[in-house]
Amino acid sequence: MSFQYSTVNRVLIVGGTHGNEMSGVMLAKHWIQDPSELRRETFTTEAYLANPLAVENCARYVDRDLNRSFSSELLSASGCQSDPYEVKRAREISQKYGSNNPIDFICDLHNTTSNMGATILLTQPDDLLSLHMANYLQKNCQDPVLPCYVYCIENKGGENIYLQNIAKHCLALELGPQPHGVIRPDILARMRKLLNCCLDFLDLYNKGTEFPSFEMDAYRVTFKVDFPRDADGEMSGLIHKELQDKDYVPLKPGDPMFQTLKGKEIFFEGEKTIYPTFINEAAYYEKQVAFIATEKIYKVVEALKVHC
Amino acid sequence: MSFQYSTVNRVLIVGGTHGNEMSGVMLAKHWIQDPSELRRETFTTEAYLANPLAVENCARYVDRDLNRSFSSELLSASGCQSDPYEVKRAREISQKYGSNNPIDFICDLHNTTSNMGATILLTQPDDLLSLHMANYLQKNCQDPVLPCYVYCIENKGGENIYLQNIAKHCLALELGPQPHGVIRPDILARMRKLLNCCLDFLDLYNKGTEFPSFEMDAYRVTFKVDFPRDADGEMSGLIHKELQDKDYVPLKPGDPMFQTLKGKEIFFEGEKTIYPTFINEAAYYEKQVAFIATEKIYKVVEALKVHC
Repeated sequence: MSFQYSTVNRVLIVGGTHGNEMSGVMLAKHWIQDPSELRRETFTTEAYLANPLAVENCARYVDRDLNRSFSSELLSASGCQSDPYEVKRAREISQKYGSNNPIDFICDLHNTTSNMGATILLTQPDDLLSLHMANYLQKNCQDPVLPCYVYCIENKGGENIYLQNIAKHCLALELGPQPHGVIRPDILARMRKLLNCCLDFLDLYNKGTEFPSFEMDAYRVTFKVDFPRDADGEMSGLIHKELQDKDYVPLKPGDPMFQTLKGKEIFFEGEKTIYPTFINEAAYYEKQVAFIATEKIYKVVEALKVHC
Repeated sequence: MSFQYSTVNRVLIVGGTHGNEMSGVMLAKHWIQDPSELRRETFTTEAYLANPLAVENCARYVDRDLNRSFSSELLSASGCQSDPYEVKRAREISQKYGSNNPIDFICDLHNTTSNMGATILLTQPDDLLSLHMANYLQKNCQDPVLPCYVYCIENKGGENIYLQNIAKHCLALELGPQPHGVIRPDILARMRKLLNCCLDFLDLYNKGTEFPSFEMDAYRVTFKVDFPRDADGEMSGLIHKELQDKDYVPLKPGDPMFQTLKGKEIFFEGEKTIYPTFINEAAYYEKQVAFIATEKIYKVVEALKVHC
């Protein structure tokens, strides 16, 4: 039995970390106006718009990706007027909710153009509280159309870049497919239900519920794959029609991966099966990422009970 | 029998009129490098990127919507350095392909986030050549997943704003759903096939093929519908889940249209059935358009044969 963590007192729901990912933007705006839906007995919850200028422009960011701007190097540098907007913003957010008095839990709301369903994105994948929350969502908030997947980004270098990691515990909900700049009713309803389920879990946790040990499948990021390019660096091919929308579906050595405009097919030449994710995500074109390869892992998670 | 038009000698295929509508951008870039696929016996075809700066930024436009910048007022005004980029660009394009020596045919390639299938968009809806081309596509290039719809924008005020109208004859191919900034293989393949079919039609036409009179259903734009808004003008609701993806499906008086975040449903209160189109198109949020209402019309089109 594990008793590692104390009660969760302050929770932050973040929308608009990327200003054109509209389910979170719309929900955060709504909850800022009317937070009644977020109320639970044992903790306080605040909704927050992380990048209001990007939201206004309906763009991912203004100067640089806010959700890659939380490195200690950027946060601790002495600020100056000419710093990118998002670096200034990251410092403000970190001052308010991180640094010396970090908030207990952040749930960061994202969308993707990829067929990622309801991906529960863990950037502290050994954190028991978020792992149990992910398991609780998988058990209590399933949906055949937008199923829950647990997605682990390990932080091997030890250096954080993500907004959510300024909290003691965190996860992101990454829902898709949804075009950026569009609010789909199905995706918004699913995100809203999941978020409420996250809060229900924390309330149960605070009230002393014992969450037993469990086992789960998860997907761990292994490497990134770029589009085919010509000698000038221009994209010469696109996602193969057999791979499009096949996020989390095994891609075996020899399976088609890209197709060029001249009609050539490009096959996966790896040595073992991978699980592609974020296939054809609009925001990753500029990062030269066609998809992110993951491996399927099996996690055994120990029991959890609040330490009072 | 009609013999109105002479042979088509010069054809322009335009991509990137909106810089983040990627099927057309990718195809135009490819055909600029290698135009062999566009060659036909009886005319010359050029591929063209209309808004290269917007393409570079993967944005719809830089300063203003290029495809609303072809009014005679904007084109004829004396230019100055501070003019919006797209106004300058519209003047260049008009000089090159319109004005005193207009090109014979423009096919402008667009994408939409809406479930518009393969919409053949006519902005000169009484032009026999483009009507016959639309009919030819419907007959010879059908596809159950992305069906062809004929969409008419009538120009009652007599004032043009669209790029394609600088040609003698024109149409746009508007394919979706596809997120802006993303190249889906299915959408690109469908656009490519349709475009080749357009060129085949023109070749047959030039060679003297007689295209008999025909009848067709089409959709004519009637009015635009905004999202529900609160007193501050902020969006207070979204497309109803029953309406999402239902482009071209009849919306009857009393049918649900929007849903608010507080759970209220808003119903269509018109007096007769409409056919909603461009439902939840990302680029129309800033234009305060949730969808565009059309009426279904029945067109009788007279026969066509080239005038030699």
